[in-house]
Amino acid sequence: MTTAEEATVCRDELRESCGVFGAFVPGADVARLIFFGLFALQHRGQESAGIAVSDGRVVRMHKAMGLVSQVFNEENLRPLVGHIGIGHNRYSTKGSSRLINAQPFLLESLLGPVAVAHNGNLTNAASLRRQLLQKGVGLTTSCDSEIITQMIAGGVGDTWTERIRSFMVQAQGAYSLAVLTRDALYAVRDPHGFRPLCLGKLPDGWVIASESCALATVNATFVREIEPGEIVRIDEQGVWSEEGLPPRERALCIFEFIYFARPDSIISGKLVHQVRYQLGAQLAREHPVEADVVIGVPDSAIPAAIGYAHESGIPYNEGLIKNRYIARTFIQPDDRLRRAGIALKLNTLPANLQGKRVVAVDDSIVRGNTTGRIVDLLRSAGAREVHVRISSAPLCHPCFMGVDMATYDELIAHRLSVEEIRRHIHADTLAYLSVEGMVKATGLPASHFCRACFTGVYPVEREPEQAKLAFEMVHQ
Amino acid sequence: MTTAEEATVCRDELRESCGVFGAFVPGADVARLIFFGLFALQHRGQESAGIAVSDGRVVRMHKAMGLVSQVFNEENLRPLVGHIGIGHNRYSTKGSSRLINAQPFLLESLLGPVAVAHNGNLTNAASLRRQLLQKGVGLTTSCDSEIITQMIAGGVGDTWTERIRSFMVQAQGAYSLAVLTRDALYAVRDPHGFRPLCLGKLPDGWVIASESCALATVNATFVREIEPGEIVRIDEQGVWSEEGLPPRERALCIFEFIYFARPDSIISGKLVHQVRYQLGAQLAREHPVEADVVIGVPDSAIPAAIGYAHESGIPYNEGLIKNRYIARTFIQPDDRLRRAGIALKLNTLPANLQGKRVVAVDDSIVRGNTTGRIVDLLRSAGAREVHVRISSAPLCHPCFMGVDMATYDELIAHRLSVEEIRRHIHADTLAYLSVEGMVKATGLPASHFCRACFTGVYPVEREPEQAKLAFEMVHQ
Amino acid sequence: MTTAEEATVCRDELRESCGVFGAFVPGADVARLIFFGLFALQHRGQESAGIAVSDGRVVRMHKAMGLVSQVFNEENLRPLVGHIGIGHNRYSTKGSSRLINAQPFLLESLLGPVAVAHNGNLTNAASLRRQLLQKGVGLTTSCDSEIITQMIAGGVGDTWTERIRSFMVQAQGAYSLAVLTRDALYAVRDPHGFRPLCLGKLPDGWVIASESCALATVNATFVREIEPGEIVRIDEQGVWSEEGLPPRERALCIFEFIYFARPDSIISGKLVHQVRYQLGAQLAREHPVEADVVIGVPDSAIPAAIGYAHESGIPYNEGLIKNRYIARTFIQPDDRLRRAGIALKLNTLPANLQGKRVVAVDDSIVRGNTTGRIVDLLRSAGAREVHVRISSAPLCHPCFMGVDMATYDELIAHRLSVEEIRRHIHADTLAYLSVEGMVKATGLPASHFCRACFTGVYPVEREPEQAKLAFEMVHQ
Amino acid sequence: MTTAEEATVCRDELRESCGVFGAFVPGADVARLIFFGLFALQHRGQESAGIAVSDGRVVRMHKAMGLVSQVFNEENLRPLVGHIGIGHNRYSTKGSSRLINAQPFLLESLLGPVAVAHNGNLTNAASLRRQLLQKGVGLTTSCDSEIITQMIAGGVGDTWTERIRSFMVQAQGAYSLAVLTRDALYAVRDPHGFRPLCLGKLPDGWVIASESCALATVNATFVREIEPGEIVRIDEQGVWSEEGLPPRERALCIFEFIYFARPDSIISGKLVHQVRYQLGAQLAREHPVEADVVIGVPDSAIPAAIGYAHESGIPYNEGLIKNRYIARTFIQPDDRLRRAGIALKLNTLPANLQGKRVVAVDDSIVRGNTTGRIVDLLRSAGAREVHVRISSAPLCHPCFMGVDMATYDELIAHRLSVEEIRRHIHADTLAYLSVEGMVKATGLPASHFCRACFTGVYPVEREPEQAKLAFEMVHQ
Repeated sequence: MTTAEEATVCRDELRESCGVFGAFVPGADVARLIFFGLFALQHRGQESAGIAVSDGRVVRMHKAMGLVSQVFNEENLRPLVGHIGIGHNRYSTKGSSRLINAQPFLLESLLGPVAVAHNGNLTNAASLRRQLLQKGVGLTTSCDSEIITQMIAGGVGDTWTERIRSFMVQAQGAYSLAVLTRDALYAVRDPHGFRPLCLGKLPDGWVIASESCALATVNATFVREIEPGEIVRIDEQGVWSEEGLPPRERALCIFEFIYFARPDSIISGKLVHQVRYQLGAQLAREHPVEADVVIGVPDSAIPAAIGYAHESGIPYNEGLIKNRYIARTFIQPDDRLRRAGIALKLNTLPANLQGKRVVAVDDSIVRGNTTGRIVDLLRSAGAREVHVRISSAPLCHPCFMGVDMATYDELIAHRLSVEEIRRHIHADTLAYLSVEGMVKATGLPASHFCRACFTGVYPVEREPEQAKLAFEMVHQ
Repeated sequence: MTTAEEATVCRDELRESCGVFGAFVPGADVARLIFFGLFALQHRGQESAGIAVSDGRVVRMHKAMGLVSQVFNEENLRPLVGHIGIGHNRYSTKGSSRLINAQPFLLESLLGPVAVAHNGNLTNAASLRRQLLQKGVGLTTSCDSEIITQMIAGGVGDTWTERIRSFMVQAQGAYSLAVLTRDALYAVRDPHGFRPLCLGKLPDGWVIASESCALATVNATFVREIEPGEIVRIDEQGVWSEEGLPPRERALCIFEFIYFARPDSIISGKLVHQVRYQLGAQLAREHPVEADVVIGVPDSAIPAAIGYAHESGIPYNEGLIKNRYIARTFIQPDDRLRRAGIALKLNTLPANLQGKRVVAVDDSIVRGNTTGRIVDLLRSAGAREVHVRISSAPLCHPCFMGVDMATYDELIAHRLSVEEIRRHIHADTLAYLSVEGMVKATGLPASHFCRACFTGVYPVEREPEQAKLAFEMVHQ
Repeated sequence: MTTAEEATVCRDELRESCGVFGAFVPGADVARLIFFGLFALQHRGQESAGIAVSDGRVVRMHKAMGLVSQVFNEENLRPLVGHIGIGHNRYSTKGSSRLINAQPFLLESLLGPVAVAHNGNLTNAASLRRQLLQKGVGLTTSCDSEIITQMIAGGVGDTWTERIRSFMVQAQGAYSLAVLTRDALYAVRDPHGFRPLCLGKLPDGWVIASESCALATVNATFVREIEPGEIVRIDEQGVWSEEGLPPRERALCIFEFIYFARPDSIISGKLVHQVRYQLGAQLAREHPVEADVVIGVPDSAIPAAIGYAHESGIPYNEGLIKNRYIARTFIQPDDRLRRAGIALKLNTLPANLQGKRVVAVDDSIVRGNTTGRIVDLLRSAGAREVHVRISSAPLCHPCFMGVDMATYDELIAHRLSVEEIRRHIHADTLAYLSVEGMVKATGLPASHFCRACFTGVYPVEREPEQAKLAFEMVHQ
Repeated sequence: MTTAEEATVCRDELRESCGVFGAFVPGADVARLIFFGLFALQHRGQESAGIAVSDGRVVRMHKAMGLVSQVFNEENLRPLVGHIGIGHNRYSTKGSSRLINAQPFLLESLLGPVAVAHNGNLTNAASLRRQLLQKGVGLTTSCDSEIITQMIAGGVGDTWTERIRSFMVQAQGAYSLAVLTRDALYAVRDPHGFRPLCLGKLPDGWVIASESCALATVNATFVREIEPGEIVRIDEQGVWSEEGLPPRERALCIFEFIYFARPDSIISGKLVHQVRYQLGAQLAREHPVEADVVIGVPDSAIPAAIGYAHESGIPYNEGLIKNRYIARTFIQPDDRLRRAGIALKLNTLPANLQGKRVVAVDDSIVRGNTTGRIVDLLRSAGAREVHVRISSAPLCHPCFMGVDMATYDELIAHRLSVEEIRRHIHADTLAYLSVEGMVKATGLPASHFCRACFTGVYPVEREPEQAKLAFEMVHQ
């Protein structure tokens, strides 16, 4: 551990962008409902939050930096009157932490106002951007969501559905959208289905959400997922499935199961927690080891650790405690504290580790520094042996579909063999789950998933690295 | 006085929008200089403030709600590095008090970033807006400044000057602009020259400003005004006058002299304070009266009152004191306090008024309520007679070129004769300066000015009232 | 569930007040170290945070409402120079959520400045308060911490130790204090030792903390606990144990083990996580049941659930997921959402519960509503049977030593028998751990603990309920 | 002009502390009324504002940093229910700009809550402070107002009046107080009457205020001034004059007339504006000069300039314009801008000065730098001659009764002769008004005033400079 960043970001996490939520409840004001939906999706983005609503005539919006609970209060929820609405939690990506990037993105167009909340990443954003600029559309941000909203606002066709389709025809990459117009709510998913998006039913209306956990929170009944390539329109007349694009090769991001989604969400019919449990059980079958205790790296690897323990017969226990209040702090340890070995996120439970052979289950290794630090922590708490088990396959290829992961150079599994990684992290043994094992644990066919980060086979063409736009803008 | 608004807004003021400032100082960071320029132009707008700067490569911007001194601090000035920049103070117009409306407005375009700070009002904004929407440009606000920036960003031509000109060709109405691009600063003025805009010289650079008082503050030498229809480009090579549009019928807003501008500004070669003094002197010649003291309604009518006093030989003194700390307060008197006659802005100086025949000079009467209230105040302070003298002609016609004045119905001089107004305000006598007298006091030809609010003869065609866009957007 | 409060506070939790931290590191600035210490103690209080430091001459302090990470930033940490310091996290108790109540509490006295950070509750606060008022000391708050600081500041004796002792002689109840003076740091614990307080060693200095988890975070070595009745003075000369009061009947709050403390803290030589595991194991021995899965109510009951599972041989798994981002939100569900059954904190994992006989382990039942709601949730997720097991004895008596629990009337176990509670919460079976079992699980003698909430035998006399002071003050 | 401070603080002003306001209106909530009273007294203090109210049972308070209009909004005014209240504007003195110093100061005592708002300065504060510390009262601030409140809260006697009197017996120096208890409002003035304080009548209640301008604002009728040494009690039974201390040598601060008070206030029966006019007229008689125009340095010297002009027959005009929006800015010009001669507060009106012999009237010279700068500004605007006339006598002695002026060394008139000062400020001539002339202009006897800053004869003994307390506290 050599840099400030590593000290505070104890886990060099995979990061993804954004949660979206939408509601259509005739006769009710949906802003508060959306608030609670976003609350349940907070894990998908903590940088900014926003809600836009329509009462059939006027679209009103409030968005700001911070957690949903920080952004909204009674005073700013009150004026958000309207029975249709969308909301968004944005993930914080480095260097773009500005209010101007917060979503939803709202535009006026010839057809009236349109607001978009987006989860995903366009792989041809640079081309689309250039097209818009060439058409004479000045852009206020460097966000995909502005591109999408401008393309829909200025799209071809007399109806919103046609305009959304005209966007889909040109767009490449991952997008799960909630779109708000004056009198309808749209749920849109790219033809590969990279990111989840589902539909729920209330007694008197409808909701859409990135994950089903948000349906459970607002006590909506899960209806179904939005299909890849589908446009779902919800309006006074009900719910309509409209033709978007024909579905293409299915490419659900398998890391939704492994890491991103909340364990209580159901994706493609599978409870995330159970899939994680099965990943652990499969890992135990593929890579057994003699040991005294199985622990998980909190929080996302806990279910896999339980699965490993049950399958292996080695007792499960907790060995690492995560500070529950790791909020965003801008305070960094200084050199003195760093040299002193300050540990912000994880402390050990020495009495559970002392003298034991420990299986430490984690869900992934990105750069490797965090895992090494965890192994060291376990040893200094008295662990006799540390056997690291990873409930996914080695990450060898970066993601261009929205996971803010790392470059080739940063991915330790791209540079080093498993044995070299084992030495790097000081583990007694190290084993990864096989790609086949991962797929098997999900109970779904391999063709259901994007596995590009393991295999290097990308489901969409990636634009040749475009010359970066020569001129930049920075909104403070 | 019957409404809450009147209680706090003791003077139903003419209101205008915005001050702009720009600087080009090779080798220096101009943000701080612009800060002080905006500080000197604070009287032109108190709602929001913003600064955008370019270092030749990246454009950076910060803007927020509030006074310049509230918006900027060392922390947010520091990252604003760059030797070219523009700044803006925005006037608060009802119902649009949102950060999203703050200026400068910054866009990325094919030619790079472009930021615009605008003072004025387009009379064909609705048409231009529709043109943009039809072209497929989604709009984020209802502000003219966004229209202008999008039209420049997506304008015709390979150079910024051509694109600015393509905007000018289509635009109608008042606009004094500061435009920032990657490597140049532009000063642009509509062909009528409605709003002031001037050029100043620093030892090592150039500045542009809405009023010359801002040049004095930063100790720049006044060079000249930007000509109507002119585009001035300032870049590494120096200052270039570029062809914009041929000047049209000159139409400087005469209320810059009467009310808006700071008294220490020089416009069209005339010191505003001296013009106001002459307005008062002319008023004394046109409408003499026997009296014991001449007072002015603070602050803008003070110089006219001094002029009236000197010309008439009646002693000048102060009779009304204005609270210097009338900042924006959101606290309104409740009914009880209003009935009790709370007086937020103006108190009298009874000992200076007691038993006296008072000439009260004011610069204008819009709705009439404030003037009536002032007359009542003077009487209750003991004034024996109150002779109201107005240093401008009766306001009979609303302004469409940027002065947020009133509708026809609200303009008291549109509805009532001078004698009726006199009765309405309870004055012993009431007299307005003649249009000719006003012009004479300025020392400039009548053809120099827009006098539409007095005469109803508008220098530009006004768009037939367009059907309001059916759909609205509200950003909280 | 009938009230708004219950809807959001899904667990009617036991609540306790405050975490304290102190540091003495010659030659270093300790504010940042204290920041990270408070960070690790955030679970003990989330309402406000504060740090006071001394450089041997001047005491400087900053405190504000919010989490440690919200209260402090580089800008306000920087001026906190000094090698001695204390910090405090305050728990939010209803109706007193004001900055004025934040700690540390800092006073000037004849001996110089003195600041106090306090965890606990004085049982004779009303008497002490009256004594101070009678002596002519005006009080600014209704907080114990002001009473303590004024009593020390105006105490008898020429040294701080004497003055602290003079406070201890008069005070009754629970207090673990960090006291800062110009040139020393004091750790003080009441003679019963109700609340934990421990001492740690850095290579170049000393720290004190409410819990040892904070020592681990800053990589300090655990030295020992502060003894009941002890005053520990830390100054340039080193660490000195000074006579406070002779220890009295030991009365450590057993709920530190059951619920309050972080699982990675060591109290009285026992790792909290292991004690919780043993509580679960003992519970399995006392109250076995045939079942398919053991789950814990997150977060505090998880270790007990693992212990129950291992002892009983029934598999452990997760069945309830807690929203990790339950920050303070002031948004309440409205009636509509409440009727719709919105669930803010806990969602179920249906696939893990479906058709199963479930043992649900929780750590306590206070009012009973939350437990009933959890049982209902489990059933609606498909649980065939729900067997509730509580890892503590029935709570029949309120606490007066600092746990903000409930009144006699509110304590369900005071009003109802176990069978009646079972019916109230709709469980198939319900069982509590015995008091003896609890003690046994800790591995410590019964005489070590305060068990008043189970037995009604209080270790300190409680003041007869004094007439409330007739006049109140409210600082907004 | 050589320092940053001088650049922004263009006038090295005399500064004084604080405005107080109180109201008693049975059956009404007075917080809003007090808000508008403080609004009218904003010129006496801009650092912080606060209001405390009582409903006969509970005292509630809100205070914060900033202008009255920034501190209060509907949300924090609403809970301030009660028919009795006091408010305070605090002047910002260097280094003490902290919320903790904001007033009112509120304490609980044996008799119930008591809040104090204070204008003035105790000359024996150090002794009183030591007495309190010796009695065992710990102090939270270094403010006089805390000393006063603690002395009243812990004072001798069974009634508030007795306790206030026991404070008065011990206190030396200047204090005009508004005191709030559970059921009464007190107005208290020191026996010398250093600072003004007056009583006003509403149709249904009573108000007290530092200056009568605040009575006018809330449309209260001026009743009388509080007498030196008097305690006025206002309660349900009406207004009671109670014995405080016998009045002593009268010592009204003459600078209230010259500079501090608003021109529309009446003090000791004299309208401040008229006194200033007479000061100017007397100055013209004492120090005539041949000239073309008389100007005043805005804002406080304007009335004196008008008086000088009328008496001398030389025309009055405006020559300097003050930026109306000089709010607190933390942005300082950097070296570059300072060298460039940036002028933040005052600009000239060249056309009014060009080629003229100018009499520039100012109210005082403290350090001399500002006056020199103004003379230079006038010359560079074309003034042919500059004759400086000061409407007060030379300031040779510092003030210890509350005017934050300067030390002996800083007072230019203590170090230099009038001729030397003239050279220092580059004036053609310089003349001060005589002490006798000042007194004469007020129309009051010399014995009415404290003239210590001119004569060095202090009305109260000053404590020998006490050893500063060895230990300091800093609240951020």
